Amino acid sequence: MEGEQGSRGAEEQGRLGVEIQWDDQGLVPVIVQDARTGQVLMLAYMNREALEKSISTGEAHFWSRSRSELWHKGATSSNTQRIVEIRYDCDGDTLLLRVEPRGPACHTGQQSCFYRCLVKWQGPGTKDQGPGGLTSCPDP
Amino acid sequence: MEGEQGSRGAEEQGRLGVEIQWDDQGLVPVIVQDARTGQVLMLAYMNREALEKSISTGEAHFWSRSRSELWHKGATSSNTQRIVEIRYDCDGDTLLLRVEPRGPACHTGQQSCFYRCLVKWQGPGTKDQGPGGLTSCPDP
Repeated sequence: MEGEQGSRGAEEQGRLGVEIQWDDQGLVPVIVQDARTGQVLMLAYMNREALEKSISTGEAHFWSRSRSELWHKGATSSNTQRIVEIRYDCDGDTLLLRVEPRGPACHTGQQSCFYRCLVKWQGPGTKDQGPGGLTSCPDP
Repeated sequence: MEGEQGSRGAEEQGRLGVEIQWDDQGLVPVIVQDARTGQVLMLAYMNREALEKSISTGEAHFWSRSRSELWHKGATSSNTQRIVEIRYDCDGDTLLLRVEPRGPACHTGQQSCFYRCLVKWQGPGTKDQGPGGLTSCPDP
């Protein structure tokens, strides 16, 4: 068991080293998506330690840029995120974390941090219904 | 019509100024999601001009960090993205663009830039089936 975990760890280490393009602060942006509903929950950042910790524990860990520390998502709120899979993009500089959230992702208590709408498509516009296009969303 | 567009523009300008937190390079990360399927397609960046252009045309425009220029997504490939709505997060420092893509989002020809899997949850692990947890995805 110990041995198996060790070799698995080494394999992933190699893969992380090859595939992931950390920025000049050693971070990558991470899109977090609810694996069941497809809802985009938040954008956070990981350094290598946060990624390794996420993989070894199966729970989302990030790097808090405001507090400059490793951040186990939900450690205080209990709103942890169980990781279903981690995907990475064509450039290797962004991760997609598909998770099963155990509660709201947002510190405001909202399910998703993207709870506010800036503009919305109103159709192509007609003489009767006005100009259409992308216009401000009604206030929630 | 002209007047209506003008005032709508001014209103959105004000809103953009208040709500969006541009980083020290004048950019925000933008998550692009297929509005119909929920698939996350790519992460890109916008400056204020790209956001204004996206809103005025209804098609996704980004700031290309590698080419340092405004980038009308799909201008050369024809794989444009019609914007359904733009959402923003609790901190106002990330946008979520929900789009109807007219073709693959990725320059590799893949529908999504996140076509590669790093690790996947294999279950809690049992004596018979091995350690479980998050392990490397099989090669595609």
